[in-house]
Amino acid sequence: MQFTKKEITKKSENFSEWYNDVVLKAELADYSPVKGCMVIRPYGYGIWENVQKYLDRMIKKAGVENAYFPLFIPQSFLKREKEHVEGFAPELAVVTIGGGEKLVEPLVVRPTSETMMYEMYSKWIQSYRDLPLLINQWCNVVRWEKRTYLFLRTMEFLWQEGHTVHGTHEESYAEVLRALSMYQEFVEKYLAIPVIKGVKSSNEKFAGALKTTAIEALMSDGKALQVGTSHDLGQNFSKVFKISFQNKEGKEEFGWQVSWGMSTRIIGGLIMMHGDDQGLVMPPMIAPIQVVVIPIDSKNEKLLEYAHKIAEDLEKEDIRVKVDKRTEQTVGYKFNQWELKGVPVRLEIGNKELENNEVTVARRDENAKIKMQNARLHFKIQNLLDEIQKNLFARAEKFLEENTHDIDNYDEFKEIMKTKKGFIKAFWCEGAECEKKIKEETKATTRVLPLDESESKGTCIYCGKEAKYRWIFGQAY
Amino acid sequence: MQFTKKEITKKSENFSEWYNDVVLKAELADYSPVKGCMVIRPYGYGIWENVQKYLDRMIKKAGVENAYFPLFIPQSFLKREKEHVEGFAPELAVVTIGGGEKLVEPLVVRPTSETMMYEMYSKWIQSYRDLPLLINQWCNVVRWEKRTYLFLRTMEFLWQEGHTVHGTHEESYAEVLRALSMYQEFVEKYLAIPVIKGVKSSNEKFAGALKTTAIEALMSDGKALQVGTSHDLGQNFSKVFKISFQNKEGKEEFGWQVSWGMSTRIIGGLIMMHGDDQGLVMPPMIAPIQVVVIPIDSKNEKLLEYAHKIAEDLEKEDIRVKVDKRTEQTVGYKFNQWELKGVPVRLEIGNKELENNEVTVARRDENAKIKMQNARLHFKIQNLLDEIQKNLFARAEKFLEENTHDIDNYDEFKEIMKTKKGFIKAFWCEGAECEKKIKEETKATTRVLPLDESESKGTCIYCGKEAKYRWIFGQAY
Repeated sequence: MQFTKKEITKKSENFSEWYNDVVLKAELADYSPVKGCMVIRPYGYGIWENVQKYLDRMIKKAGVENAYFPLFIPQSFLKREKEHVEGFAPELAVVTIGGGEKLVEPLVVRPTSETMMYEMYSKWIQSYRDLPLLINQWCNVVRWEKRTYLFLRTMEFLWQEGHTVHGTHEESYAEVLRALSMYQEFVEKYLAIPVIKGVKSSNEKFAGALKTTAIEALMSDGKALQVGTSHDLGQNFSKVFKISFQNKEGKEEFGWQVSWGMSTRIIGGLIMMHGDDQGLVMPPMIAPIQVVVIPIDSKNEKLLEYAHKIAEDLEKEDIRVKVDKRTEQTVGYKFNQWELKGVPVRLEIGNKELENNEVTVARRDENAKIKMQNARLHFKIQNLLDEIQKNLFARAEKFLEENTHDIDNYDEFKEIMKTKKGFIKAFWCEGAECEKKIKEETKATTRVLPLDESESKGTCIYCGKEAKYRWIFGQAY
Repeated sequence: MQFTKKEITKKSENFSEWYNDVVLKAELADYSPVKGCMVIRPYGYGIWENVQKYLDRMIKKAGVENAYFPLFIPQSFLKREKEHVEGFAPELAVVTIGGGEKLVEPLVVRPTSETMMYEMYSKWIQSYRDLPLLINQWCNVVRWEKRTYLFLRTMEFLWQEGHTVHGTHEESYAEVLRALSMYQEFVEKYLAIPVIKGVKSSNEKFAGALKTTAIEALMSDGKALQVGTSHDLGQNFSKVFKISFQNKEGKEEFGWQVSWGMSTRIIGGLIMMHGDDQGLVMPPMIAPIQVVVIPIDSKNEKLLEYAHKIAEDLEKEDIRVKVDKRTEQTVGYKFNQWELKGVPVRLEIGNKELENNEVTVARRDENAKIKMQNARLHFKIQNLLDEIQKNLFARAEKFLEENTHDIDNYDEFKEIMKTKKGFIKAFWCEGAECEKKIKEETKATTRVLPLDESESKGTCIYCGKEAKYRWIFGQAY
């Protein structure tokens, strides 16, 4: 289906309608006939393929290997870790019929794979020589959900889940931090989204973890998005799944475990962070198409030939290029469509460009057109792509700084959460009651205690009791 | 878990025990606690990652884009195409509970995605301009199965499924053949498995297709393995899912559809085709590790340093290398382990090699050791890997030739299927009754009518009636 004109809501007028319009009309995704599920269309999946490619490289570089574990988990496995089953029970999809017969033990469609993987780990790990065990899995998971918010909240989503086992808590906690830093580097470098690394409050931690760490980003509507998590599981699971090993002294010990994950949700963050009234704005490093070449008249063979020549030169240097050679659309229509799709650089080619052996270059992140001579063009275009990447990150970083407020007065806190939103850094006593009240009254939850936050003296923004740290608060997606 | 000695059944003594031993002990896969499911361990998944990498490249080169469709399909969708539901109904896993509630309409876990994808296609396709629509999906599917035969028959498996829509039957049939040729090229080039391309009998075709084509390989135990299929769906699905488009003349027509798939089953074929009494034999192009470097004494720093130096040089040239620097295992143990894992080339490094700036090279496919000077080593090793790849293919091709028999006498047919097996080329009247009787009496099914088989005159091997073509028969996995 081709859209016939640009009909997207303005970002400033209605953020969530703008978001849905962009996702649907840029053909990133579509609603599925099953409530809560989504279809990821080729252009959206192209982003995910790039996420996989670059993140997988970082995962492998850390010595972690990929594997694949079953989709179905016996219901009894989930029940072994008390907090874990309590956390996930309300979200499960359950298979009760298989091959035409009612199952004796129902099977749960994995909401996450701790239990299945750890059952296997207990078989594979026997000695300290088997440690560390470093495994990651790219797969689909299901958490029951009827309302769909494309990419951001769906019943089924794609993700990677890393699950490692170590000999000591010191080593496993180092892995928690390594994974978190890897996520930060990935998101900041490739998606141009600045994030804050920190520790979650007890209330917000993963069901079954000792401690959850996360990276949090601030979207352009002032709401927070958690884009990656890394959990210190301690020995909670190893004790119930009997993952034990003989240490160097011949003594039996339980393993120390970590899990970390990032999902297709990140694509939602990408859209919200950089998009504008014209649609998507793709950071070049993650863009499925980095450069689109548009002959002003695609029925003109000479222009088409010149366009292909340029595209081939750029492709040779690993720049992702597409020539739009469609003949039934106007040039204006094409410009709009590729703007909507957020392609970072557009090369326009008309007779004048052909004559002068040059191209007209339009960048998506700024309203500027320039001419470039077609000599060492790949070099100039690569520089431009790098510049756009940096510009988007700098812009997002500025936004994050301008919208992070140190607040010591609860009225002010409430006012900010009612109006412009953003991140608030405020002293909190770390009591669950205050956290709950703040959420009820302002919709803001504790996001993280930043890892680099140093201890100081303050009073809880809600109850006034003594508090040591400023936590980050925000309204979350 | 580390195995302490080589305990694999001999291939010649008990093929299926040998197969299971190899899969488990080379750590390709493991049984899962859920009957019928398997766990693909990192070394096995490494093969699948290479399959994905190289096959995906070929898929994209043909202009096909990847996307992702939901795991869950409403039960009613499957019922729309009569043959399709009859074919798949006995194999379904059904979700009846979601988020703690009984579902009004149960959801089927996809056994294949025709119905879900085509429901979406009907929304996306409106005009001839939207054709051809070329989409592929890499995902997991579930077909109920309690007996597990690792990689070969599992309840859940990984695969890719291509689904294309075209304006005419001529175009769609060209796509059927293109996909089949792509599979042939992939399997022969990367997996070193020669295959026969052909058309399936009506009885063996895909549920809902007009015609199914497949590539068939002959395993080293004389049994046949179907390793890829490409289906001419005609308009069977487009009519029930209302995938129609306005043609250039403004007339509404139904699309012509094709689907094609290849799964993790191919890894089973790879193991059976090339393995020997010592374990796996990996064709270099698909091997997760192409070269293992073993210092004869890994506590000797100088040897270790030399080993790493060599590995780095090879890695720079994109050769996949591993240095086995473990100190607690004997060299003999290491040799055995890497042989079991089928690594194509082993480089041994002792004091003598270090002194003479050389390496001792052992190839997995032949019992031969040679010395190589460490100068332009990457070049020599790459040549050796190419030679091993060719050797494995030639060996498999010879086996296929020697075990394909033109047979015109049914007693001989029965005798062959009782003893050495292999492919039998025999005239068949194409009647379902003869096909059924032959299967009952010999366990052999029609595999394919080869695409290059020319028409001639013969009589059906079973009933003696007139027959035009020699079909391939074999006992199938």
